Parts: sequence; structure tokens; C-alpha cells
Amino acid sequence: MPTRARGVFAMSDYARRTAFPDAVLQRLATVAEIDPAVPITDFRLAGEHLATADFLITGWGSPLVDVNVLDAAPNLRLVAHAAGSVKHHLTADVWQRGITVSSAADANAEPVAEYTRAMIMLACKRALPQANAYRTAGWPLDDQRVDAGYVERTIGVVGASRIGRRVIELLRPWNVRVLVSDPYCSPDQVRALGAQQANLDRLCAESDVVTVHAPELPETRHLIDDRLLSLMRDSSVLINTARGSLVDTEALLAHCETGRISAILDVTDPEPLPPGHRLFELPNVTITPHLAGAQGTEIALLGHYAVDEVIRFVAQEPLHGTVAFEDLARGA
Amino acid sequence: MPTRARGVFAMSDYARRTAFPDAVLQRLATVAEIDPAVPITDFRLAGEHLATADFLITGWGSPLVDVNVLDAAPNLRLVAHAAGSVKHHLTADVWQRGITVSSAADANAEPVAEYTRAMIMLACKRALPQANAYRTAGWPLDDQRVDAGYVERTIGVVGASRIGRRVIELLRPWNVRVLVSDPYCSPDQVRALGAQQANLDRLCAESDVVTVHAPELPETRHLIDDRLLSLMRDSSVLINTARGSLVDTEALLAHCETGRISAILDVTDPEPLPPGHRLFELPNVTITPHLAGAQGTEIALLGHYAVDEVIRFVAQEPLHGTVAFEDLARGA
Repeated sequence: MPTRARGVFAMSDYARRTAFPDAVLQRLATVAEIDPAVPITDFRLAGEHLATADFLITGWGSPLVDVNVLDAAPNLRLVAHAAGSVKHHLTADVWQRGITVSSAADANAEPVAEYTRAMIMLACKRALPQANAYRTAGWPLDDQRVDAGYVERTIGVVGASRIGRRVIELLRPWNVRVLVSDPYCSPDQVRALGAQQANLDRLCAESDVVTVHAPELPETRHLIDDRLLSLMRDSSVLINTARGSLVDTEALLAHCETGRISAILDVTDPEPLPPGHRLFELPNVTITPHLAGAQGTEIALLGHYAVDEVIRFVAQEPLHGTVAFEDLARGA
Repeated sequence: MPTRARGVFAMSDYARRTAFPDAVLQRLATVAEIDPAVPITDFRLAGEHLATADFLITGWGSPLVDVNVLDAAPNLRLVAHAAGSVKHHLTADVWQRGITVSSAADANAEPVAEYTRAMIMLACKRALPQANAYRTAGWPLDDQRVDAGYVERTIGVVGASRIGRRVIELLRPWNVRVLVSDPYCSPDQVRALGAQQANLDRLCAESDVVTVHAPELPETRHLIDDRLLSLMRDSSVLINTARGSLVDTEALLAHCETGRISAILDVTDPEPLPPGHRLFELPNVTITPHLAGAQGTEIALLGHYAVDEVIRFVAQEPLHGTVAFEDLARGA
């Protein structure tokens, strides 16, 4: 790639505007020629832009990058994705032609992990159910407060890839005990995170908060099912910021309806949850509309990350977010 | 003070149990003789315990430590308070007799600052109003999400003593712009915090989130009044974890009722807020029942802090939480 490279944006206009505000474009302009007014959503209309492109920056709403696109882009050496997963818009041909693929999944992990940290804190303090109870039943009694607090808690992290690991890092200042269940993590890797490995049964049985960060795969559907929910401790809280299908919604509803456990859900199955769904009515369940990931100004984190990757690529430095073809099977 | 000192707990039974669970008592037992079964709530019943005490550990529900108590405790050299303010239970005589006073206000600041960090994150992401809107009006439109995010925000911190400073430290990883208004902080001190000094008008006009950490004093009553609330930006959020009287409740209600600004309140004026109060009914207002400070397991942080102070005192090391008599006027 030349020291001043040529690039193309392949994403929706919304993604281009939110991920690449002026401050991000200015950084990109220091190393590359790219026309921000042309975010491509159909490669058949890309013409000369593609013929001379050294790199693509893809994002939300990117069209499929297949063999036809690659044939039209003979100079292409890098696809930098300004979002999380690349598995839905890049075909295997990209890797087969030796093109480097980078994803901003690390940057996307940051707001999810931050949202999770905030919700774990509120879960431990019983803040949101107490807000509901204060409104509907008045000032709480002292003994309703005793079983609260983030000190000396056990937090169970289901899935320790990017987001799960980042959550564990963000929890470190609290000195809580962290249990991790992840089939791809060795006990040594878990220890290096300052956590303990546990199978899902033990994790659910011993955790005050269980937070789900596993990928959506056929084998993770209803990973958190009625049996595991039954194992969860009295007054414990389930947090799901991953994908709704990882949790059996009907089973969760039944366990929350008794008041024995609580839930904080940023994702549900189905999504959106239909109006009037019984989960919406429970005082011990908080449901946000899939906003833990990059929203509003946070989307620029994805653009900054992709631009950093382009800058490194131009400088022939190692990238931080390289996606190997083998990573796709594990949810990348 | 001898290398093995004698002490007395002066606090309610509830405070003794929550602040000094076994793990904390065991640490104390390494340097001191103290009977955890006798938490004194009336010094007239203290008898021999007081006559031989080298130190007092006070806490919530401590009786007044006045000249009569001091006369009955000739060996007393230290009062370590396992809570925040000492101004309501220690008379000036304590300092006049050269007795060292320590407060665990730093430890009490920690959960308040953590709650505040969590709520600032959710405020920036519009998480709680969006949860309400999702339940009542369905899935949000894209353009309802654009004005969200914690990146590139300005956070206004009103009052930069213990808690305000700790909040600023906890926000550091986000690289947000922090404005500080505190009459006791010099511009240099504010710069050292990585923040900018601003008067209250500018702070309110430029901040996306305004968080209140000022002390309750006659001159801070209604510090945040109708005029300042009018200056706050559209869609900005007021967070109050300090004292309800710092904010003019009626003015806040009026500004939140229009939907122009939102609020997250852990304290109110009056407190408790009466059932059915209009603030409870607003979808853009979240009210928790004064739980930001140490709750449940967090209360042990106060005990650990007081024990650390006793250990340092016995070892003749400098204390971390010394309260000078002059500090009382500023809210200690």
C-alpha cells in the first residue's frame, strides 16, 4: 500500500455520519484519500472508486463483499470494518486473496462493557427495584437494604471473549470474586484475568450477578435455561447484553415473576419485545432497547478504531483488530 | 498508645454488625482488645470500658462524645469514626484535649462515587428513559438514539471535595470534558484533577450531565435553583446524590415536566418524598431511596477504614482520614 492510500466507505449514510464525524475524518485524511460524501451501499454503483481502492472501510449497512467486488478492486489490501462482526458481509474470498481483515469489535466492546459495569453496580445496590418500590410502596425499611452492596460479591461472567474480558477488567477495582464460564478459555487464561473458572452450574449457583457475554451460535441457543435459572441464588440478578436467544425467555419470566431473581435485559427474544409483554410489567425486570452497544456519540469510537487500523496499515505496523478466517466460527 | 490497645465501639447494634463483620473484627483483633458484643449507645452505661479505653470507634447511632465522656475516659487518644461526618456527635472538647479524630468519609465516598459513575453512564446512554419509553411506547426510532452516548460529553461536577473528586477520578477513562464548580478549589487544583474550573452558570449551560456533590450548608440551600435549571442544556440530566435541599424541588419538577431536562435523584427535599409526589410520575426522572452511600456489604468498607486507622495509630504511622477542627465548618 502506498504511503498515501486510496479508500472507499462501504456502509449506510447513517453509519458514515455517526462513525466518521469530522474529527475522525480529519485523522483519516492525514494518510488517505477517501470521499466521505460517497458511502457505498451498492458496489455496482461504485465504479472507479473501487478500481483504485487500496482499502475499504465497511460498516453498518455495508453490501456484501464477494468475488465480483474483489475482481473490481484489484488493488485492495485491507478491509477495515468500523463495527463488530464481519461474518455477514465478507465472504471467504476476501481472506483467500490475502486481503487483511480488521474489525472494530474491540471498540464496540467498550460501551457494552461500560453499560454492563454500570448495571452490575446498580444490580448489587438493588437500585432499580428499590426505585420502583419507593414509588409504589414508599420508603424502604432498613432490613430491605441489608442484602445490598457491591462489596464481597461474586460476579459470574458467561463468555470471556472481548466483551466478557473487558467487563472483568472494569470490575477489577471492586475486588469482587469473578467466576468465568467459557469453553474456549483455559484455566490459566481465566487465572490471568484474575478470575476463577467454573462450569455453568457452579457459576449460576454461586454468583450474585450473572452477566451473559456469549456469542449467538446454534449451540448457545437457550444456554441459560430453566434448569440454570433454578440454580441461581435467591435475590441474584441476570444481566443479558449479548443476544436474546441465549436466554429462555419463558423460563426467565417464570423465575422473575416469583420475585426470587431479577433481570436487567438489553436484548430479548423476541426483539423487539411485543407491547404489553409480561416481562415489561415486572418491577424486578429492567429492559432497555438494545442500547448497550455503541449509540450516538459512542459510534465514533468505531470510526476512530478503523482509522487507527488504516494508519497502522499504511505505516506497515501490526494491526490491533485483525480477524483471521478461523475466528469466524467462534462468533467473530 | 500501647502496642496492644483497648477500645470501645460507640454506635448502634446495626452499625456494629454491618460495618464490623467477622473479617473486619479479625483484623482489629490483631492490634486491639475490644468487645464487639458491647456496642455502646449510652455512655452512662459504659463504666469500666470507657475508663480503660485508648480509642473509641464511633459509627451510626453513636451517642454524643462530650466533656463528661472525656472525663470518664482519661486514656483516650483516638476517635476513629466508621462513617462520614463527625460534626453531630463530637464536641469541640475532643480536639481541645488533643485527641486525634479520624473519619471514614473517604470510604463512604467510594460507593457514592461508584453509584454516580454508573448513573452518569446510564444518563449519557439515555438508558432509563428509553427503558420507560420501550415499555410504554414500543421500540425507539433511530433518531431517538442519535443524541445518546458517553463519548465527547461534558460532565459538570458541582462540589469537588471527597466525593466530587472521586467521581472525577472514576470518569477519567472516558476522556470526557469535566467542568468543576467549587468555591474552595483553586484553578490549579481543578487542573490537577484533569478538569476545568467554571462558575455555576457556565457549568450548567455547557454540561450534558450536572452532578451535585456539594455539602449541605445554609448557603448551599437551593444552590441549584430555577435560574440555573433554566440554563441547563436541552436533554441534559441533573444527578443529585448529595442532599435534597441543594436543589429547589418545585423548580426541578417544573423543568422535568416539560421533558426538556431529566433527573436522577438519590436524595430529595422532602425526604422521603411523599407517596404520589409528581416527581415519581415522570418518565424522565429516576428516584432511588438514598442508597448511593454505603449499603449492605458496602458498610464493611467503613469498618475496614476505621480499623486501618487504628492499626496505623498503634504503629504510630500517619492516619489517612484525620479531621481537623477547622474542617468542620466546610461540612466534615
